Amino acid sequence: MYNLLKGKKGIIFGALNDMSLAWKVAERAYEEGAEFVLTNTSTSMRFGNIDELAEKCNTIVIPADATSVEDLENLIDKTMERFGGKIDFILHSVAMSFNVRKNKPYDNLNYRYLNKTLDVSAISFHKLLQVSKKKDAINEWGSVVALSYVAAQRTLYGYNDMADAKSMLESIARSFGYIYGREKKIRINTISQSPTMTTAGGGVKGIDGLLDFTERMSPLGNATAEEFANFCITLFSDLTKKVTMQNLFHDGGFSSMGMSLRAMTMYNQALENPIEPESYD
Amino acid sequence: MYNLLKGKKGIIFGALNDMSLAWKVAERAYEEGAEFVLTNTSTSMRFGNIDELAEKCNTIVIPADATSVEDLENLIDKTMERFGGKIDFILHSVAMSFNVRKNKPYDNLNYRYLNKTLDVSAISFHKLLQVSKKKDAINEWGSVVALSYVAAQRTLYGYNDMADAKSMLESIARSFGYIYGREKKIRINTISQSPTMTTAGGGVKGIDGLLDFTERMSPLGNATAEEFANFCITLFSDLTKKVTMQNLFHDGGFSSMGMSLRAMTMYNQALENPIEPESYD
Amino acid sequence: MYNLLKGKKGIIFGALNDMSLAWKVAERAYEEGAEFVLTNTSTSMRFGNIDELAEKCNTIVIPADATSVEDLENLIDKTMERFGGKIDFILHSVAMSFNVRKNKPYDNLNYRYLNKTLDVSAISFHKLLQVSKKKDAINEWGSVVALSYVAAQRTLYGYNDMADAKSMLESIARSFGYIYGREKKIRINTISQSPTMTTAGGGVKGIDGLLDFTERMSPLGNATAEEFANFCITLFSDLTKKVTMQNLFHDGGFSSMGMSLRAMTMYNQALENPIEPESYD
Amino acid sequence: MYNLLKGKKGIIFGALNDMSLAWKVAERAYEEGAEFVLTNTSTSMRFGNIDELAEKCNTIVIPADATSVEDLENLIDKTMERFGGKIDFILHSVAMSFNVRKNKPYDNLNYRYLNKTLDVSAISFHKLLQVSKKKDAINEWGSVVALSYVAAQRTLYGYNDMADAKSMLESIARSFGYIYGREKKIRINTISQSPTMTTAGGGVKGIDGLLDFTERMSPLGNATAEEFANFCITLFSDLTKKVTMQNLFHDGGFSSMGMSLRAMTMYNQALENPIEPESYD
Repeated sequence: MYNLLKGKKGIIFGALNDMSLAWKVAERAYEEGAEFVLTNTSTSMRFGNIDELAEKCNTIVIPADATSVEDLENLIDKTMERFGGKIDFILHSVAMSFNVRKNKPYDNLNYRYLNKTLDVSAISFHKLLQVSKKKDAINEWGSVVALSYVAAQRTLYGYNDMADAKSMLESIARSFGYIYGREKKIRINTISQSPTMTTAGGGVKGIDGLLDFTERMSPLGNATAEEFANFCITLFSDLTKKVTMQNLFHDGGFSSMGMSLRAMTMYNQALENPIEPESYD
Repeated sequence: MYNLLKGKKGIIFGALNDMSLAWKVAERAYEEGAEFVLTNTSTSMRFGNIDELAEKCNTIVIPADATSVEDLENLIDKTMERFGGKIDFILHSVAMSFNVRKNKPYDNLNYRYLNKTLDVSAISFHKLLQVSKKKDAINEWGSVVALSYVAAQRTLYGYNDMADAKSMLESIARSFGYIYGREKKIRINTISQSPTMTTAGGGVKGIDGLLDFTERMSPLGNATAEEFANFCITLFSDLTKKVTMQNLFHDGGFSSMGMSLRAMTMYNQALENPIEPESYD
Repeated sequence: MYNLLKGKKGIIFGALNDMSLAWKVAERAYEEGAEFVLTNTSTSMRFGNIDELAEKCNTIVIPADATSVEDLENLIDKTMERFGGKIDFILHSVAMSFNVRKNKPYDNLNYRYLNKTLDVSAISFHKLLQVSKKKDAINEWGSVVALSYVAAQRTLYGYNDMADAKSMLESIARSFGYIYGREKKIRINTISQSPTMTTAGGGVKGIDGLLDFTERMSPLGNATAEEFANFCITLFSDLTKKVTMQNLFHDGGFSSMGMSLRAMTMYNQALENPIEPESYD
Repeated sequence: MYNLLKGKKGIIFGALNDMSLAWKVAERAYEEGAEFVLTNTSTSMRFGNIDELAEKCNTIVIPADATSVEDLENLIDKTMERFGGKIDFILHSVAMSFNVRKNKPYDNLNYRYLNKTLDVSAISFHKLLQVSKKKDAINEWGSVVALSYVAAQRTLYGYNDMADAKSMLESIARSFGYIYGREKKIRINTISQSPTMTTAGGGVKGIDGLLDFTERMSPLGNATAEEFANFCITLFSDLTKKVTMQNLFHDGGFSSMGMSLRAMTMYNQALENPIEPESYD
């Protein structure tokens, strides 16, 4: 609509289906004039319909396991080959916890699963950046964005070891942002998005109640996937060149709220009519 | 009980009655071996029973309006006279908002009231520090604590212009903490306390529901006035000499919570049985 | 260049001369298709050359003292009259400290000056928002931005009572952002900008050394006024609708740095060749 | 000196020699009336002289690799056996990075080393807590403290992957603090300590210059190991029962400083006499 990304090339991780945040980012980046490749794991490619998105955006999918340095090297090589040079932006929207999936509570973690959570959800971001830098794959003033969540700062029931992974992810954005900024003028940020009813978000226990609560707590309501995409576009554009090493809350104001009238009103209804649960554990 | 404040002298602002945080601090400081003077405004002295506390702690009350530099000068002079020298600690627990009292909502503030809110709740802290420093009233490694609230970081419905005052108060603790630390080794911190059912707290609209919510959100429950006093004692003691310019959350964990199972369970009861209020404004 | 603000109307406070952040914002907003009025105090209008900017942007200047509710009412009325309706964005770039100007150090503040600092640099923002809301002057999904600085979080030598004012300013953005968001879907944010060599910035003691330090600490270097303007445009655009109640660091990474190699290298040169100053006070 | 820990039992990790923070904590805890066991890896036990400390504190050393669940189980079992019941406090002061040791810069990390960094410096804390909870080893209102550093929030040149580990460590303190607090009233916090010239700290590149910088930036100067121990005692005592899920800065004010006069004065000396380094990379 604005040609904000005209002439820019990129890579978008994590589009599974049309509920995905990354899917919306791809659509919007395409509208804004960007060219990009899509990538996801082979498994995700089977479960979703990323090929449809690729067609729509006139591009290809390069499968890659984001925890594999070799796959990332291949991805970067193939991408640079396709574009005949360097790229300008990357979206990292990759996260998974087997502890969540297998219902291992946080005080009974399986440590192999935890390693996997960290590898997929945080270390993959470092690997991506390290491979990109070694191959000098990103143009000066390029922009890299990863998807985070407020659980990196505050504990939410049920979010489990993903909280620790997001904390580490945001730290990687800072640590690598320093080096990549200093040496190549590349900026690295995370967006802390409202809980969103994606396929991934849908897996989190009690997501319905939480979505209602955050909707009522946030003065502007929860941010949608479309709105996430719009915000992401601004971070890929040339208008945000000096924003780096930041975690940016895109959440309708939730992160700055302690208690809203709307949420309190709803809560008080239960208070006036309490049905005490028998156990919380 | 531990003689943590043996030989230390101080000033305690803000004890109104036995529900006050400052009242509990006075009792505990006395138990820990401190000598101190109490102070409050003449009005508060009439409404509460601070004289009873003074008797119990074997001390006197020196009336002072904390917004008056003259009163503060007199307070410091009289205190130094009484102790024959410098003091070691001060508790500032002073806050008031006419906008809250007069039900002026935050989008219809009376600006004279706002100035009064700032003067009583924030600037008084600066005046106290400036007068103390000019009179060189505090020993090296002395400790000054002011009472804050999480509203300085996150908006809570109904807390109104007190949020802005608390933000400013915490800023003053940093700004003056730098100078007083650099020059006289004096530390300045704020404690961000759970909402507490004091006489002052009781005036905040919807405090009951909020107390229930924060109780369920905080893994250790809300902090009581007695617990506040204990924590305050540690900050006055010689064991925390290098903690300065900090806002310390004493809130059972509330400030680090996004959503607890207990609060969500209560909230969900209302969700399942919604009675939509007609208006929120 | 992108038509990001096509059809949008606004008000820009604080353009003094072509070094001003607000001046650059006006130029960029104009390029992006916005219409707006400019405003400043009569005194500033005399000292600077805002009329030149008005001509360039095909608009007018409406004088207003941002601390005067009456002036703000007149400003809003005249603006709505000019545009035949509501506006979409406001930039508040207004700050002044007589304590800084008159070299009153932070431990010897003049309290009348402090009240003035707060009134000009923080309360004026509340007044602007309150007047705007009462007159229902801003369209749904409108955007208001105020200028802040990292001194709101961390103490910088010489920044004096402006630190407290900026803390309060950021609090007002949150407090009013909650209400204006909830009721009118309007977002309110602050941008925490690198120190910039504007006429105002030039008045801060020791600004040269500080600019060098922050330049070397920030992996992307200090953000310029032009870059500030670009970032500001994204916040006024429709692409950031769910960002509210935030303080956004636009500083080349400074706020997330503890120590950079470049700054440390420079610092170490002095360490190896120390010339101890005689006094720091 | 105060009997603050009279009757309390605990475990102290990480005492290597008399420069260690944990060593000082052990000495102070002993003085305050606590009984505890010491633990460290067999390797560290050979390199240091922990046996001397054990003798001094009238206790034993139970070797344990903090990354081994089996070792931790044995440690907890042996400790409970020795004390005939539960314990009240734990200090976790365990951290190591092979990437730092082997001079692998952050943009050329060895990922096996990174896994080791995380396992030793962060996940070990989770394992300790999980084992403790499964064995119900800690009394109600017990207190667990881990050692952190400001690099968890801000990037410091040379701190490398330890920054990411500390971010994760602080997240674990929050995540587990929620659960352990909710169910057993146990509090979990981290202390973010000034850089300290311990054997571990001495390994960080450029530590001398950094120590000088932080000393001049901190209004109260860097916190020493003895002061760390004192602060730690307050967190183990009954006076801080409602402080949980917090990261507490114990750093003489450094974390709240943007720029001090003393650091700027030193920096400016280099500025006036610049010797530009040839390369920064």
